[in-house]
Amino acid sequence: MTTDQKPSSRVVSRAIRVQNDAITTVEEHLVIEEPLEIRIVHGSASNRKIKPLSVTMRTPGHDSELAAGFLITEGIVRDADDIESIEDATTDFAWSAKGYGNTVVASLVPNVEVSAATLERNFYTTSSCGICGKASLLALQTVCPPRGTSEFIFDAEKIRSLPEKLRRAQSIFGLTGGLHGAALVSANGEIVLCREDVGRHNAVDKLIGHFALREELPLRNFALMLSGRVSFDLMQKAVMASIPMVIAIGAPSSLAVAVAQNFNLRLVGFLRPDHFNIYSGEERIRMDQARREEADAGKQE
Amino acid sequence: MTTDQKPSSRVVSRAIRVQNDAITTVEEHLVIEEPLEIRIVHGSASNRKIKPLSVTMRTPGHDSELAAGFLITEGIVRDADDIESIEDATTDFAWSAKGYGNTVVASLVPNVEVSAATLERNFYTTSSCGICGKASLLALQTVCPPRGTSEFIFDAEKIRSLPEKLRRAQSIFGLTGGLHGAALVSANGEIVLCREDVGRHNAVDKLIGHFALREELPLRNFALMLSGRVSFDLMQKAVMASIPMVIAIGAPSSLAVAVAQNFNLRLVGFLRPDHFNIYSGEERIRMDQARREEADAGKQE
Repeated sequence: MTTDQKPSSRVVSRAIRVQNDAITTVEEHLVIEEPLEIRIVHGSASNRKIKPLSVTMRTPGHDSELAAGFLITEGIVRDADDIESIEDATTDFAWSAKGYGNTVVASLVPNVEVSAATLERNFYTTSSCGICGKASLLALQTVCPPRGTSEFIFDAEKIRSLPEKLRRAQSIFGLTGGLHGAALVSANGEIVLCREDVGRHNAVDKLIGHFALREELPLRNFALMLSGRVSFDLMQKAVMASIPMVIAIGAPSSLAVAVAQNFNLRLVGFLRPDHFNIYSGEERIRMDQARREEADAGKQE
Repeated sequence: MTTDQKPSSRVVSRAIRVQNDAITTVEEHLVIEEPLEIRIVHGSASNRKIKPLSVTMRTPGHDSELAAGFLITEGIVRDADDIESIEDATTDFAWSAKGYGNTVVASLVPNVEVSAATLERNFYTTSSCGICGKASLLALQTVCPPRGTSEFIFDAEKIRSLPEKLRRAQSIFGLTGGLHGAALVSANGEIVLCREDVGRHNAVDKLIGHFALREELPLRNFALMLSGRVSFDLMQKAVMASIPMVIAIGAPSSLAVAVAQNFNLRLVGFLRPDHFNIYSGEERIRMDQARREEADAGKQE
């Protein structure tokens, strides 16, 4: 049902490198940032309407997955069944590197309801934006009521090895120093799939979109791993895909922790070689019992 | 003309720390991420209209500067003279930590023209989004035609000391591991002002807004320093404030380099202890002449 472009994550650019006393001309790999407009075709079979929905600054590649993930994690459609097809329609923006499509058109199944508010809402997002119209947790709660605790259990011992596994997964596509990674991790601590993008929220949309297009949502038995920090919008996307656990190498924001607590997600952050922090849902992360009691005693102080 | 809130960049939250074999309960500092709605009041003196313009996920503090910077760097107003006043109007969003205003109202001087397109455009931005309706470089070019080369010259020797200076400036507000810093740097390599936020674009808006409200724009004789990576939206903001040079500790995206080249900005990135890269405008960065010739020879290969 989808077209899919080959991943193109970087271009080579000449730069002047100043290193101690030496100045040289070097070939530098730049992560590609290009606009992508997501349009939807909706309405009845006899009255199709097209609506430009979003412009996001993203790294080209897996654009149809990005579009599918966006439609689902932003609550435009309920699930992938609502999407009939996703097609590329190339439009080159000014100054863009050539050869990248800048538009995808997602046709919804006829008569799928799209709220008027959604159609009026304009989504314009940069390479690191993903809230797109959700002004508050209240809005998120409306779209996606808090869930009961999932049965998913993750072993704390497996968390330590994840940064190294993510680095290996990201290196497949090459590291430019400018790419965020998002990975789906199974309960046994293996990386199932990794997606990269100049924008954190795009990497997550590509990842979730991949499984959406294979009709493998919800992702109740997986953790979402993030190469950087975790803010509200990324937690929102995990909630929308029913992912019960988020593991971030970087720090969470206050609102990321609030989402985790309100939606019963486990949230691990600040993953360092010798330690990590659990901000929410520690009772669903398996640790040695004696050590857990130690922590419980600390909590009650 | 402005109200200004005291900076509140972090909250303390309990977390479980798993460190090697020890599990402890720790007090963690979280960077605060809270929604801020920017509204404008516009129209004639006898017919005032209010329009919600943007919701951004930001770290509370310097909200009026953030609003002023946003209005200018997004091209809503030409300069600070168009802004009559900026007032806080508290609205607590669901689940938000209490005590933070969630709304600022910017009243424009009566009869200041705001384009219909601007008013129809909805800005919804996360903690790391800043494009807000600009779909392409073409749009940026329309708002802000390419400028001639500024006379501003920066000494390459001064670049090396900047990361340490930025770290010191950021530590005043406290480092949570989750805050982006943006600083204005003078030609002699000193940090004039530093602003922090969970969102990169917000930190830049607060910085530029500070000078806008003091009627000190354009900033033709300063460099913008960024604690992280640099993407399209941050370059856009530098262009809008006429800042001729951007120095980023992280990597630039392809589009960031394109903006630098098209708008004659100097762009330095990948600032490491022993080296940095110049992606654009190296002829306006002062280096030892012999070393420059070495680089020129390399370029012509």
